[in-house]
Amino acid sequence: MKQHVGVGMVGYKFMGKAHSHAYRDLPMFFPKSLRPAMKLICGRDAAGVAQAADQFGWEGYVTDWRELLARDDIDVLDINAPSDVHKEIALAGASAGKHLFCEKPLALTLDDAREMLQAAEAAGVKHMVGFNYRFAPAVRLAKKLVEEGRLGQIYHFRAFFLQDWIVDPEFPLVWRLQKEIAGSGAHGDLGAHLVDLAHYLIGGMTEVIGMSETFIKERPLPSEMAGLSAKGSKDAPKGSVTVDDATLFMSRFANGALGSFEATRYASGHRCTNSFEINGSKGSVKFDFERMNELQVFFTEDADDVQGFRRVLATDPAHAYMDAWWPAGHTIGYEHTIIHEVVELMQALEENRQPVPNFEDGVRCQEVLEAVERSVAERRWVRVDEV
Amino acid sequence: MKQHVGVGMVGYKFMGKAHSHAYRDLPMFFPKSLRPAMKLICGRDAAGVAQAADQFGWEGYVTDWRELLARDDIDVLDINAPSDVHKEIALAGASAGKHLFCEKPLALTLDDAREMLQAAEAAGVKHMVGFNYRFAPAVRLAKKLVEEGRLGQIYHFRAFFLQDWIVDPEFPLVWRLQKEIAGSGAHGDLGAHLVDLAHYLIGGMTEVIGMSETFIKERPLPSEMAGLSAKGSKDAPKGSVTVDDATLFMSRFANGALGSFEATRYASGHRCTNSFEINGSKGSVKFDFERMNELQVFFTEDADDVQGFRRVLATDPAHAYMDAWWPAGHTIGYEHTIIHEVVELMQALEENRQPVPNFEDGVRCQEVLEAVERSVAERRWVRVDEV
Amino acid sequence: MKQHVGVGMVGYKFMGKAHSHAYRDLPMFFPKSLRPAMKLICGRDAAGVAQAADQFGWEGYVTDWRELLARDDIDVLDINAPSDVHKEIALAGASAGKHLFCEKPLALTLDDAREMLQAAEAAGVKHMVGFNYRFAPAVRLAKKLVEEGRLGQIYHFRAFFLQDWIVDPEFPLVWRLQKEIAGSGAHGDLGAHLVDLAHYLIGGMTEVIGMSETFIKERPLPSEMAGLSAKGSKDAPKGSVTVDDATLFMSRFANGALGSFEATRYASGHRCTNSFEINGSKGSVKFDFERMNELQVFFTEDADDVQGFRRVLATDPAHAYMDAWWPAGHTIGYEHTIIHEVVELMQALEENRQPVPNFEDGVRCQEVLEAVERSVAERRWVRVDEV
Amino acid sequence: MKQHVGVGMVGYKFMGKAHSHAYRDLPMFFPKSLRPAMKLICGRDAAGVAQAADQFGWEGYVTDWRELLARDDIDVLDINAPSDVHKEIALAGASAGKHLFCEKPLALTLDDAREMLQAAEAAGVKHMVGFNYRFAPAVRLAKKLVEEGRLGQIYHFRAFFLQDWIVDPEFPLVWRLQKEIAGSGAHGDLGAHLVDLAHYLIGGMTEVIGMSETFIKERPLPSEMAGLSAKGSKDAPKGSVTVDDATLFMSRFANGALGSFEATRYASGHRCTNSFEINGSKGSVKFDFERMNELQVFFTEDADDVQGFRRVLATDPAHAYMDAWWPAGHTIGYEHTIIHEVVELMQALEENRQPVPNFEDGVRCQEVLEAVERSVAERRWVRVDEV
Repeated sequence: MKQHVGVGMVGYKFMGKAHSHAYRDLPMFFPKSLRPAMKLICGRDAAGVAQAADQFGWEGYVTDWRELLARDDIDVLDINAPSDVHKEIALAGASAGKHLFCEKPLALTLDDAREMLQAAEAAGVKHMVGFNYRFAPAVRLAKKLVEEGRLGQIYHFRAFFLQDWIVDPEFPLVWRLQKEIAGSGAHGDLGAHLVDLAHYLIGGMTEVIGMSETFIKERPLPSEMAGLSAKGSKDAPKGSVTVDDATLFMSRFANGALGSFEATRYASGHRCTNSFEINGSKGSVKFDFERMNELQVFFTEDADDVQGFRRVLATDPAHAYMDAWWPAGHTIGYEHTIIHEVVELMQALEENRQPVPNFEDGVRCQEVLEAVERSVAERRWVRVDEV
Repeated sequence: MKQHVGVGMVGYKFMGKAHSHAYRDLPMFFPKSLRPAMKLICGRDAAGVAQAADQFGWEGYVTDWRELLARDDIDVLDINAPSDVHKEIALAGASAGKHLFCEKPLALTLDDAREMLQAAEAAGVKHMVGFNYRFAPAVRLAKKLVEEGRLGQIYHFRAFFLQDWIVDPEFPLVWRLQKEIAGSGAHGDLGAHLVDLAHYLIGGMTEVIGMSETFIKERPLPSEMAGLSAKGSKDAPKGSVTVDDATLFMSRFANGALGSFEATRYASGHRCTNSFEINGSKGSVKFDFERMNELQVFFTEDADDVQGFRRVLATDPAHAYMDAWWPAGHTIGYEHTIIHEVVELMQALEENRQPVPNFEDGVRCQEVLEAVERSVAERRWVRVDEV
Repeated sequence: MKQHVGVGMVGYKFMGKAHSHAYRDLPMFFPKSLRPAMKLICGRDAAGVAQAADQFGWEGYVTDWRELLARDDIDVLDINAPSDVHKEIALAGASAGKHLFCEKPLALTLDDAREMLQAAEAAGVKHMVGFNYRFAPAVRLAKKLVEEGRLGQIYHFRAFFLQDWIVDPEFPLVWRLQKEIAGSGAHGDLGAHLVDLAHYLIGGMTEVIGMSETFIKERPLPSEMAGLSAKGSKDAPKGSVTVDDATLFMSRFANGALGSFEATRYASGHRCTNSFEINGSKGSVKFDFERMNELQVFFTEDADDVQGFRRVLATDPAHAYMDAWWPAGHTIGYEHTIIHEVVELMQALEENRQPVPNFEDGVRCQEVLEAVERSVAERRWVRVDEV
Repeated sequence: MKQHVGVGMVGYKFMGKAHSHAYRDLPMFFPKSLRPAMKLICGRDAAGVAQAADQFGWEGYVTDWRELLARDDIDVLDINAPSDVHKEIALAGASAGKHLFCEKPLALTLDDAREMLQAAEAAGVKHMVGFNYRFAPAVRLAKKLVEEGRLGQIYHFRAFFLQDWIVDPEFPLVWRLQKEIAGSGAHGDLGAHLVDLAHYLIGGMTEVIGMSETFIKERPLPSEMAGLSAKGSKDAPKGSVTVDDATLFMSRFANGALGSFEATRYASGHRCTNSFEINGSKGSVKFDFERMNELQVFFTEDADDVQGFRRVLATDPAHAYMDAWWPAGHTIGYEHTIIHEVVELMQALEENRQPVPNFEDGVRCQEVLEAVERSVAERRWVRVDEV
């Protein structure tokens, strides 16, 4: 019988639900994994968190996250509250000897992220950051092809995270549009994922230059937000949008490749186009999260008359994680990336190693984000090692 | 607090796992639904079913399905054992007053299916059949467009279920290739889904004519099968394949539309292309299960210069079931069709009505399948009301 | 300097224009070919044909096709007038020793087609039939893959020619909807192309069974038609549609493959989806004329982790005819299939052999079409060698 | 009878062939247009140009372009020789009162381009530049949607011209890789088209910042090049590549939109992906030249349940130029963009106005290209009005 790992969670909205579900599903599909025990979930609104605890299957709930620290049966602290409170909770958790599983972005600033990494290292705890897109089997396949040299020398990485949920000017001023809570807008929310994918697939960047814009500068004052949807009103008083609506940047990678990045919430028709393409001397791959089970793959060494991008449906036994799921051709969805993330967390705990991606990856990501922000502010190329 | 519905299940392989997962996930994503209580799971192999019970989250297990009938806390009997035992279990279940949720095909023959329907009706129990593809949100959208008249008068329905898992001649003689257990091959396994989709989307058929083939007539004798994968051996003794590898048929619908159907396990490159297209006087739709979150939609009344099939990503709040899941653009997978199926089952129980699809749909499907088989055997058009 | 081949043409509408253009373009892109000399074009309407002669670049025009026969400088008779006059012209042309290039369908009936073939053979002239889709480079690639055994044993051929130009009930009763001129409707117009592709790619069929329908039985009386577009009027008197709107059939091929065919003019959203798929033991291909530069290609022997349909853009030097055109990636269009057809005609004349496809292919196609018609009328399987 | 316009052409390779074909096809498909008379073609190699003259259908040929200037029957000078000689020929042509149709890039430098524009204006001749992609019907549709406000306010324009013809390090040092002849590499060859499309579709840019790279710095010395293909040799002596292999840049448009551009010859698998996307407040469009007959179109105001990108096949009568070609669904190819370009040239001559795009557009394009080059050299944002 597999050992249980006690989990306490802070946050119960979109990410809280996704993580909870991952803990629930884990033992069923990955029976050889350590088993998460869903101890306590924490939220500030007692009624809301009580309902979540029941619905998601937690043993209990609390309204003050500090209570989680005192519990001996909680090994892992899962932090998916809004970004502005990540640091405080993580630092306290590390002090209390809890392993940390924190949603991205790690923190609002690079300094804070570094402080979190140092605290985790000092405390000797395991730490993980929620870059879930690494865990799509099609993305794993891209990584494998790069690592095995099947794409050759990499020349280009271009990545886009295109959404359209705030194209309507009446969409209200939710917390994701307020700098003091969200840290940044499309850049930190969407661009962060692209940067992490770039690190994962290609490696480190040396320098960046960015461009940023807030297209709609005032919006109706906030009402409650669930997921990414919310309702505004024409007659509501307005407040200022203090984050970027879109941020683009170019970069150079240490290995000589050129990078191009774009994160926007103003791409009408794109609900969630998290996409990238890699071009190498021996091949290319293309990925789009809206078709997350697929990877387009090209090899220059294919026979002359049948060269072309292959649409690989990454649901075969040859693809990462897929033997745990359904027969070939039966696709999986968004939530499976989160489940695979938790598989990695449990495996790292079992093997007494750091999970990947961890706070170091969170910090590296934040370095690039902050270098981009500086390049936007100062209108110049910024070396990543400047920040 | 929602009432619990006790469930007992027979079968613990591919479908058993999918159903179990649906029961587990239901309360988390559809909290207003009745809650399934996962009582007992049954399988002939004690070690296997014990492990499944633990892994899938059942309270206990038994090796004789008759034990389920005696239990007062079991309201619903979920039958997903191989097709040859459906009937016996369903009849006994009905006698014992259990509601029945049976995988397709309902039975090996039309007579058996009718007997099952009569028994369920006589016993006054609820009955449901596992045509899960109806429950993909993109398929629901197709249905909605037809029902609201947005496609106009329907002229054509063409449907294909293309797989390739037995193209390799060394693939062994698993139970799905043996008539006495499986009833039929591609026809009953894959074609059944197409026929049900046709009934759901277009309505009844009046006459059919089919064509059938077994391309590879002998295969290495069986080893165990998990999901759709198995391993054969060149040197193993061989046995006869007694089911169809591929069955095609044409049909006329009562509403005047023409139907074209093809089910095959010999379509190299198609892992699970369950696809259909509807052409009507005002529009058309196309669906492919390998991209199950998408429906291609065309309207003849679109402006002249922008006519074209729209790729609708059926993950918006406007799409069936999707408000229970993730933000728009976050796709779902195969297993969600099963979860939605169970939502319908619970809702029907709550509303004291028959679920849809139920045994009547199972019988109607079997009628068409059997009419096709007769048309193949007798090389002539067969009216559906002949069988 | 290449020898000139004198050409006389009967017909000057859609096909007349396409053929004329092919003769014009030939020497520019295939300079090693014999050169067509565009002598005379013939049409019944003097003003119309005079304008066409000037516009298309013919030396002169006539209104009686018999005049073409008397001319010594005319070697090839290009017959693209409506189908009901093919036979008379072809027989006379053969008698006069002219080589024959005839649009499909060869004739209104199989008997007529056979008579044309016999006449051409008796006269010892070359004869060609206008199955232009064989000449798309992507289709040539499909043929090459089949011939070289790269798809293995063929199990399935399914083909669809879907159009939507008469979905509107006000579309008038043009000649293509009148049996006495057109011979048949979707079946002879569109299905004929599919049958020829089947013959070209897979080989002969042994038996067929079909289904046919005329959805809209009366239409406004005809006004002039250009290309496939025409204007009707609600208030115009109506006449009967005497051809099929849609014809489907299933077939068995001599090599054991199963065939599925559908031709319809009622597929809303499909302007010209002439598509086929071949499934073999070692691979599959898919083609759609709306993306005529592409062939989707799958190989079962690709590495386990990168199996998938490749989108081959058949514009590389490795693809048939493409070295005559533009750099790789620069696509060609519909009219190029006609040009390649004429390349074949000229090459055959130079090499003193029959072009391919020729009247034998026209007859073989007509045999299948007529067998299908009989199977529709008699509601039974019909052997192709019955007709 | 339409008036003839005498044409003299300098250059007879890829572009010379494409333009010649356009002049040949024009009267057949656009009979109301002025008719080009193909007088003289000029090339330095007598044997080569003599063969081209015969093959392409010119009345004669010369080896010194100055001879074209003396001819009274030549109204238009078509300049498609290598870029380094554009200026000298254009200036002389303008002095001689010839209308100028010059391939892009107009010249090797902005100063030269401006001098050419001034000369043409001073001489009062018509001038056109060969930005052919504007003339794809699908691109015209994009323009129409923008102009009619159907995409709303424009937020994003991103464009990629991806090719892969020099990924092989053995590919030789052809003239397009030499700065003194080609001016620049991917930037001027491919990026120029993107910049022109941006100007056409969105409008002017205010500032830019770019990044450039030459991945393979030495290549085998040149052999002859035809189209984009050439053969190198491992043992050949090597020379330096003096142009960019890839250039990326970001920009701001005067109307507030953000631009992102990438031109590369190192994108394995992309033969000719000239693609762009526009995101506006009311809709989006996507274009890819490898599927040049299609435009993907999205409208935010579509009904909630059927939102999605429409694949518009721009071959309907509603689409620009298409009534001149074939029935709906019959696609056109690369060369048709050139034919449409010549339609515009002839129409402008007939209407006594400047064609569009003309040398002003060539200069505007060159301004942006040069601003990008400066931004690369000086590693800073450069205002377009700086150059």
